[in-house]
Amino acid sequence: MRLYYAPGTCALAVIIVLEEIGASYELRSVDFAAAEQQTPEFRALNPQGRVPVLVTEQGCLTETPALLVYLAQRFPAAWLIPQGDTFAFAQLQAFNAYLCSTVHVAHAHRMRGHRWADDPAAIEAMRRKVPESVGACFDLIERHLLGSPWAMGAAYSVADAYLYTLASWLEADGVDVERCPRVLEHRRRMAERPAVRRARDREAGGGKMVQPR
Amino acid sequence: MRLYYAPGTCALAVIIVLEEIGASYELRSVDFAAAEQQTPEFRALNPQGRVPVLVTEQGCLTETPALLVYLAQRFPAAWLIPQGDTFAFAQLQAFNAYLCSTVHVAHAHRMRGHRWADDPAAIEAMRRKVPESVGACFDLIERHLLGSPWAMGAAYSVADAYLYTLASWLEADGVDVERCPRVLEHRRRMAERPAVRRARDREAGGGKMVQPR
Repeated sequence: MRLYYAPGTCALAVIIVLEEIGASYELRSVDFAAAEQQTPEFRALNPQGRVPVLVTEQGCLTETPALLVYLAQRFPAAWLIPQGDTFAFAQLQAFNAYLCSTVHVAHAHRMRGHRWADDPAAIEAMRRKVPESVGACFDLIERHLLGSPWAMGAAYSVADAYLYTLASWLEADGVDVERCPRVLEHRRRMAERPAVRRARDREAGGGKMVQPR
Repeated sequence: MRLYYAPGTCALAVIIVLEEIGASYELRSVDFAAAEQQTPEFRALNPQGRVPVLVTEQGCLTETPALLVYLAQRFPAAWLIPQGDTFAFAQLQAFNAYLCSTVHVAHAHRMRGHRWADDPAAIEAMRRKVPESVGACFDLIERHLLGSPWAMGAAYSVADAYLYTLASWLEADGVDVERCPRVLEHRRRMAERPAVRRARDREAGGGKMVQPR
């Protein structure tokens, strides 16, 4: 498999899961500063021009929640999603969907406001609200969604990799992290996992082939 | 099961799937005009204050992509998701994630701009861009994502119910629908399905118990 990613994006969640399952994969960095995601070559992989893109033997896959569950299903021995429990799986899917469509979207209004308005003053108004809107998302996670010790409760899952990735943007988004101590504690617990350390190293290291462990 | 919904929302996709599988369920309308979704009673079901919410024997579930797959997994005989094919399931999940986190989000900037900015001029600027941003999403669906005759190709799936629901908002979003003839043809094909007709009737009819067929 080959993963196209960019540093500082939600692709980190997929790298973490690739490391957790001990997969053999190649990392390929996409240079956003050079608008590489807009090139015809990259658009042929993903017409949306976004990362992550996972190239598999069967073709390209996109969208972080889909990739996380795909990897967990392909490597069931790592047990990174509930198996044989439709309700628990739906809860994990709901958690991921909230991160994807509400939390990540709130965050995106800081840097990608041009997607939703043209007026520079409007884009600036969106940026101003990010600490409040992202903060409200994490209040809800802190109080209602986050299990213990892991996102979905007793079992570590792909939702932990996803939450950790988005929670790593809190300070840059201007959120006072003291308002969500449980999220911070989860982030610290995640940062200690060997797979997360390796994923961070590899995210920073650029494209290279990762051999199976 | 009981589904909390509001007319004109993405909850329609869930109603369609409930009808496709012939489930026994109760529909409960949430009055957005009266801000019923903000009441403590509703917040106890979904702290986000949004629909759809599906109450099951095991508890509440939220987030449309999660609900669609949950129902398909609980009623496997209806075969509304790929079964035993991890890659094909991931493609369906990616399609649903795109609808949820990009298409629905672009649409939401028409009526819910207050989520992402406070300045009335910024909210108006967001509203102005909706025809362009939603139109660009449907261009991508038209050219790259939409299979034939159904969203994922030969097999009808929950993705069809979801696409149909979001495509029903195109005119109200100010998109020139002539730019996406394949999406329109899909919408017409969907509208002819008995389950979709029943779902439309029940969406319009308000809360009532639906007996299994």
